[in-house]
Amino acid sequence: MRLSASCAAVSLTPGVDAGSARGGAAVSHCRLENGLEVVVIPDARTPVVTHMVWYKNGSADDPPGKSGIAHFLEHLMFKGTKNHPQGQFSDLVAELGGQENAFTSYDYTAYFQRIGKEHLETLMRFEADRMCNLLLSDEVVTPERDVVLEERRMRTDSDPAAQLDEAVQAALYAHHPYGTPIIGWNHEIESLGREDALDYYNRFYTPENAILIVAGDIDEETVTRLARETYGRIPARAQPPQRRRVQEPPHRAHRLVTLADEKVEQPAHERVFKVPSYRTAAPGEAEALETLACMLGGGATSALYEALVVERKLAVSAGAYYAGSAVDDTRFWVFATPAPDVTLDQLDAAIDDVLQNFVDRPVDAAHLQRAKTRLVADAVYAQDSQASLARWYGEALATGLTVADVEAWPARMEAVTADAVAAAARQWLDKRRAVTGFLQPL
Amino acid sequence: MRLSASCAAVSLTPGVDAGSARGGAAVSHCRLENGLEVVVIPDARTPVVTHMVWYKNGSADDPPGKSGIAHFLEHLMFKGTKNHPQGQFSDLVAELGGQENAFTSYDYTAYFQRIGKEHLETLMRFEADRMCNLLLSDEVVTPERDVVLEERRMRTDSDPAAQLDEAVQAALYAHHPYGTPIIGWNHEIESLGREDALDYYNRFYTPENAILIVAGDIDEETVTRLARETYGRIPARAQPPQRRRVQEPPHRAHRLVTLADEKVEQPAHERVFKVPSYRTAAPGEAEALETLACMLGGGATSALYEALVVERKLAVSAGAYYAGSAVDDTRFWVFATPAPDVTLDQLDAAIDDVLQNFVDRPVDAAHLQRAKTRLVADAVYAQDSQASLARWYGEALATGLTVADVEAWPARMEAVTADAVAAAARQWLDKRRAVTGFLQPL
Repeated sequence: MRLSASCAAVSLTPGVDAGSARGGAAVSHCRLENGLEVVVIPDARTPVVTHMVWYKNGSADDPPGKSGIAHFLEHLMFKGTKNHPQGQFSDLVAELGGQENAFTSYDYTAYFQRIGKEHLETLMRFEADRMCNLLLSDEVVTPERDVVLEERRMRTDSDPAAQLDEAVQAALYAHHPYGTPIIGWNHEIESLGREDALDYYNRFYTPENAILIVAGDIDEETVTRLARETYGRIPARAQPPQRRRVQEPPHRAHRLVTLADEKVEQPAHERVFKVPSYRTAAPGEAEALETLACMLGGGATSALYEALVVERKLAVSAGAYYAGSAVDDTRFWVFATPAPDVTLDQLDAAIDDVLQNFVDRPVDAAHLQRAKTRLVADAVYAQDSQASLARWYGEALATGLTVADVEAWPARMEAVTADAVAAAARQWLDKRRAVTGFLQPL
Repeated sequence: MRLSASCAAVSLTPGVDAGSARGGAAVSHCRLENGLEVVVIPDARTPVVTHMVWYKNGSADDPPGKSGIAHFLEHLMFKGTKNHPQGQFSDLVAELGGQENAFTSYDYTAYFQRIGKEHLETLMRFEADRMCNLLLSDEVVTPERDVVLEERRMRTDSDPAAQLDEAVQAALYAHHPYGTPIIGWNHEIESLGREDALDYYNRFYTPENAILIVAGDIDEETVTRLARETYGRIPARAQPPQRRRVQEPPHRAHRLVTLADEKVEQPAHERVFKVPSYRTAAPGEAEALETLACMLGGGATSALYEALVVERKLAVSAGAYYAGSAVDDTRFWVFATPAPDVTLDQLDAAIDDVLQNFVDRPVDAAHLQRAKTRLVADAVYAQDSQASLARWYGEALATGLTVADVEAWPARMEAVTADAVAAAARQWLDKRRAVTGFLQPL
């Protein structure tokens, strides 16, 4: 669960003043003959480039019984290729003064580096090599599986809050794979082997399934030429992999998930609603949900914070978050931490009151405008980071949106009306279909 | 959910006084060359035979995204074959004074007829024909899908109690397919077509995957000869279909599922624990759970009934049920209907008390003996019905047990100790991992 008490964590790329703010030209998008998408984000402010490859598959595309394979393969992608033994790529990036990382989410897996722009071609050669020449032996796969199991033990199995999040997600998604943790279920990770990893790699790591994103002081023509000379040499497959995900049935019951553990020192409350994502929403609906999250729980002037923390002193923190970037229907979180001597039941009832009040009363025009301005402004500030900018485009494209969607986002946010926010609250904040999570000490 | 307020609903076949009580020889089990299992249950009391074919696949074997296909195919099995047009088989059974039916469960699908013993060979010819010669056209598949959708509307979508059961099962099984309703999710049933049905039929309806059960005044030799002449002509496939089911991760959180609907007139409470089945349990453990269910909730002298209905008058009914027949880990239900003016929260707390009391105090020896005697006696009485007898063997074999397991059951029940019941209660009735369901009016 990503929680954010600020509106800054918008989940869609803003393209305010595209180009000029970064001292560059417009963002370009094209496709190589082998299907690879190429996005160039000119950014003349520093002599650094951000180079990312996004694969349009994440944990929600893990085959049944193989949960965790997307994330496991992300680890294995650092294990060397036919041309470069393990460590050579990472060592090179470090020697050239760069940074690298990778991440796996429900809907995508991505690899990125930041480096001086003169080294872009080198990175592209290495990353393209890794797209088609990965070498995997049992000698590297088996110990790496232990690394992942240890990662799971550290992050989830020894952390009651993470355990509750897993149980809440599983309750929210009874059928759809968003109910399965990105890292996978322990007993399924244990059974993953070299063949599983290679099958997965061969199925998903293809140019038709990838998006190259380059941000930096470099022009579209140069990037496209370099991409052709590197990634462009990888042959296309017969057809790109399909995302075949089971869809969630309608829910009719509220589910309260309670995790009580002696390790819990600070109780916590969360409520999650299943809502449309930017990809699945009707026009304007996702923007209304984004605005609603900000008005309800985006910082110290939000409805939840004012009511629970400032006025009633039932909570020490409270917020809301809309996880809008998702291929399928997604999550809207409301969360709070109770003040000392306040029970989770009391807090839960108070949260019901705040949400009901929000639905019952007209949306305040000034509050609405403040939220929209803040969301768009935060997005503009975030453009200061070249890596954030590249990541936003990647996340949007990897979840089924377009560069045009990204660039139209500020205007669509400005167009959100009080009626749209009220309608979103009425329609989607329906407790009868939601999941509530209680984290409490034993 | 199958709920039973009596201990009679034992979920495993008892074989008390095997043979003699029925005036017949011992139950026999063999396998034809093509893999078909043949079980003969001699029963000389009437000139009637029960003829059943069990397929070792149920809704839990539905391919991902095709929920409901096992049940849908059960409907389609009545649509005619290359040799017998639709209706001919059923008409014949009726003309011969017989009865027929079919049922789909999580772990199996079965077809059966009861008929005068002189007609057994005819039934076997028709049923064997249906095992390999099914004809399906869009003209029969599409309208039958509408029949199934209507069945779902009637049974589930317009019944809040059934909706709650679906949500409770989905919460209990976040990953394993027991969390998916046998009839399927509506949106997936809608997408099932002729190809799906044929693929499924070709995969699962094979002699290696089937069990023939014949009970009646007929000997093993005759049945085996007839089976060879009918089912025995169906060629074996390369290998029997595998049950590849994802397994459930461990649960650490209690889940309360609340369904509030204006159609609810009588509130209800249920709590479900995930427990081992006869197939997955350690030796003696399933029998202890069976006994525990009887002591806790089997009739008017059980702990739940006495405490909630008789003494505290908080409930008008209360019981417990162990669904022991299952390939994978299964369900132990505790359920109660509140008395007027008693809230579900009050009832829930009282149920906690009863369960905690049961765990805290020594198991009463007289109560234990009464439960065991009753379970075994009920099983003996149930042998009076030839169809029940045949069904018990079928259910046991289709969920991975053997004829010997069935016949040893009464002795294993007699061997259940107070310590074993107490240990089962302590280990498995752990609310922290359970699901509670509240059905309440809006």
